[in-house]
Amino acid sequence: MNGTGIKKHPDSMVWGKKDLSARAKCFDMTSGRKIVVLNEEEAIENDIYPSYRVMVENAGKQTVAIANLSRDLVKRGEIGIYVEVSEELSLHDGTMVRLRQMDRPSAIEFIKKKLDGKEIGENEMKIIIADLMDNRLSEAELSAFITAMYIRGTTDNEVVYLSDAIVESGDVLDIQRHPIVDKHCIGGIAGNRTTMLVVPICAAAGLFMPKTSSRSITSAAGTADTMEVLAPVDLEIEEVKEVVLKSHGCIVWGGGMNLASADDRLIRIRHPLSLDPKGVMLASILAKKKSVCAEYVVIDIPVGRGAKISDPKEANSLANDFISIGKRLGMKIEVLITDGSDPIGCGVGPALECRDVFDVLEGKGPSDLRDKSCQMAGVLMELCKKVEKGKGYAVANEIISSRKALSKFREIIELQGGNGKVKRDEIEVGKYAHEVLAHATGRISHVDNRMISKIARAAGAPADKGAGLYMNFEQGDRVKKGEVLFKIYAQSEAKLDFAIKTLESWEAFELQKVILNTVE
Amino acid sequence: MNGTGIKKHPDSMVWGKKDLSARAKCFDMTSGRKIVVLNEEEAIENDIYPSYRVMVENAGKQTVAIANLSRDLVKRGEIGIYVEVSEELSLHDGTMVRLRQMDRPSAIEFIKKKLDGKEIGENEMKIIIADLMDNRLSEAELSAFITAMYIRGTTDNEVVYLSDAIVESGDVLDIQRHPIVDKHCIGGIAGNRTTMLVVPICAAAGLFMPKTSSRSITSAAGTADTMEVLAPVDLEIEEVKEVVLKSHGCIVWGGGMNLASADDRLIRIRHPLSLDPKGVMLASILAKKKSVCAEYVVIDIPVGRGAKISDPKEANSLANDFISIGKRLGMKIEVLITDGSDPIGCGVGPALECRDVFDVLEGKGPSDLRDKSCQMAGVLMELCKKVEKGKGYAVANEIISSRKALSKFREIIELQGGNGKVKRDEIEVGKYAHEVLAHATGRISHVDNRMISKIARAAGAPADKGAGLYMNFEQGDRVKKGEVLFKIYAQSEAKLDFAIKTLESWEAFELQKVILNTVE
Repeated sequence: MNGTGIKKHPDSMVWGKKDLSARAKCFDMTSGRKIVVLNEEEAIENDIYPSYRVMVENAGKQTVAIANLSRDLVKRGEIGIYVEVSEELSLHDGTMVRLRQMDRPSAIEFIKKKLDGKEIGENEMKIIIADLMDNRLSEAELSAFITAMYIRGTTDNEVVYLSDAIVESGDVLDIQRHPIVDKHCIGGIAGNRTTMLVVPICAAAGLFMPKTSSRSITSAAGTADTMEVLAPVDLEIEEVKEVVLKSHGCIVWGGGMNLASADDRLIRIRHPLSLDPKGVMLASILAKKKSVCAEYVVIDIPVGRGAKISDPKEANSLANDFISIGKRLGMKIEVLITDGSDPIGCGVGPALECRDVFDVLEGKGPSDLRDKSCQMAGVLMELCKKVEKGKGYAVANEIISSRKALSKFREIIELQGGNGKVKRDEIEVGKYAHEVLAHATGRISHVDNRMISKIARAAGAPADKGAGLYMNFEQGDRVKKGEVLFKIYAQSEAKLDFAIKTLESWEAFELQKVILNTVE
Repeated sequence: MNGTGIKKHPDSMVWGKKDLSARAKCFDMTSGRKIVVLNEEEAIENDIYPSYRVMVENAGKQTVAIANLSRDLVKRGEIGIYVEVSEELSLHDGTMVRLRQMDRPSAIEFIKKKLDGKEIGENEMKIIIADLMDNRLSEAELSAFITAMYIRGTTDNEVVYLSDAIVESGDVLDIQRHPIVDKHCIGGIAGNRTTMLVVPICAAAGLFMPKTSSRSITSAAGTADTMEVLAPVDLEIEEVKEVVLKSHGCIVWGGGMNLASADDRLIRIRHPLSLDPKGVMLASILAKKKSVCAEYVVIDIPVGRGAKISDPKEANSLANDFISIGKRLGMKIEVLITDGSDPIGCGVGPALECRDVFDVLEGKGPSDLRDKSCQMAGVLMELCKKVEKGKGYAVANEIISSRKALSKFREIIELQGGNGKVKRDEIEVGKYAHEVLAHATGRISHVDNRMISKIARAAGAPADKGAGLYMNFEQGDRVKKGEVLFKIYAQSEAKLDFAIKTLESWEAFELQKVILNTVE
């Protein structure tokens, strides 16, 4: 028996732990991490050193933060609080908080297991994701986890467990109607705004499509950024349900709800290393689909020069993984492997992409964007047996031609809180523009997705909704010297200049080869 | 050609980079990382987000720091500076500094290579270590590197390249005398103070032994902590040379000089994950030996229950690695595989361990400590052909018996700036003491190194030099109920209480089994 009267609970098993209390002093600092500042002397007396993690508690809420130390800025008995922590724990200057040095989270043991080449079990995966969500894992530990998944690979079991754990980490959007469909496109293609067409087509056909999209990280616009030109995208989960129950579809920002929320954290870890272990990517995508209760899913894998995946074999194997793991998660999946070697549509940047979408819905507009959207919507209608095998594309096409998709789109815009009557030309693009001319006659051999994104971002996209560029030609087209290849739009002269400089600084060694390759 | 007049240099190739200048505002904050605080608005305008790395420059010196953002604490045109950065760049309030968003360091490409199972080349390894030293790599990136080495393993080439790169990352201590010998003990054994005996024995025998030791991280004392009871250990490299040229030996703190300095950073990364890839450990140890120009090295690998390595096979294979890689690095190495299942000596904690050392040097004292030290010193004398094969142990023993080692030790203490005439009993131990009695008659089956360290640390070691414990028995000894098993020393009543509580809180479920196992 324990004769010392020391109380034992799971968090204070380790030697040297004791609870402290301190008065909050809120700093207006953000660091992307949860940070608290402790008085140096006091911290060291309590065996807390810079970068140690401490558990901070207020009124029943608790979080794990990283300790910084200060000699003067924070006095004994005080605790400096960064914005990330004060918001989470609702702290104000003077709030008394409790803190305690952290134990080694149990997830570390399971991460180590993966490092050693063993399979992670269902419950172990749940603990890893729970510790991740509680911010109990350091950058280094999470990086080891991702690295181990990358090197060791993942079993189908692990991907299923990880998907389930991610789904459980957040809320679930369950509209309790059928069939629920969803789509996903492996990123990397500029202007690829198929979602804004697939949703109204499917919704018009009577399927339910509660679509959540992301904002841009490195591209010129994410679907959420683009849709935001027309309507609010940051809706509460109950508002989303209402929109979908009324119109069969929505196009909202996934980050605004609490769906599959572990996924955002996993993305943040993968990003700086550019590590994207296949198993984690699969789980991340499929968890998002499962968290909206999707039953039928179409996945678009663009392949080719400049796309995320350049090898068709790799695309095929990935497609098979999607299908088999989707099945275990209760989703019927079909994969389209598409040409990802050049941009889709003409506009790049939120407002300019919206114009493309309206052009297609009005029966004009970029044929590649229309084609791809009809293919995807067609697959979904066939998957859920709404239409006969082989007829999906034609039915989708007809839904566009008949303007049913257009009116469905306007209905969704209106329900999300936008102006459903907006006209294509009323969508404002940047006032400052610059035309880029072909400096030779020839045929366009390749349009570089990455370069196009960089120029659009330099012009201000996606924060400046009207910024971006509009392309008059695509791969394979013939151009004459002096014709306008594309036009850059910006909302300020400075940003336009910046975009032009970005373009020019690449011209010498990149432009000819990459943007326009003269072959005759 | 580049017609825009944009200057290109290696650090500004990436889009969106431009130099900013800002007025320093020094915060008295430390975080264990280099941090600067930028005005939120201004940072985002320049595409810098929380946790991005920025290059900060002042008067020719530059460093890479992590950006935190603040709305009010730092105004536009200002930059908040943490202690880690202001010290490195000699910044004061008002200093104008330049800053710039960082490029992706080239090391990442080579780290990725290792992740993908390819061998890292000599030059690539140098770049990784240079980027590490310049603080260009994030915790996540370094963790991926260590994880990859752990999972993929390392080739002999990589270990050699890594050792050389670590040596090159710091200064080299070259006394230009021969033979230079060194020793290393794979850690984990409480009270294992052989260094303080091996150095005077070898020095007395005419070998040169410029020994650098570490401070404790998780143990009750490192050799540097213990030696510090008797003499300063934080010497400049030139002072160390002088001591060694005069007395043939020294026992100083390695961290006080700039030897193999990349190693400290690598240790910091391995620590939180408890990852210790064999190749990194080998390189880390061998680089430290090479940076003092050692020619002959003895390595002690304790094996057994509670030691770092418990499997004799693993110890054998590690021994072979040490020998073959040492050879490629120009060092002749012999490895002793020793019994690591219980503590060495009687004292644990700086002052108490010093008493053990004097006891041995005066011809009394713990026989296990004397034996092991003579074995190690003997190997070194044989390796460099100072004595005939097979006679090293006897010669070392004679150097102790004749008190030559004692007077050499006193000479070294004096040269390092301590009191060479100090008597054993003048070494002060904690005033507050507590005797722990055997609660049964029996034979001691095991003394747990980790538990012993925890109690000594709870009592205040290594910061309180007089804190720790003194053991009256070792494994295999018979004890009677009521005899004093060991005595805890502390410098304050509160810490003594804490140590007793640490002990008691374990007693119920650990003490009987671990400290004292009654077998009759």
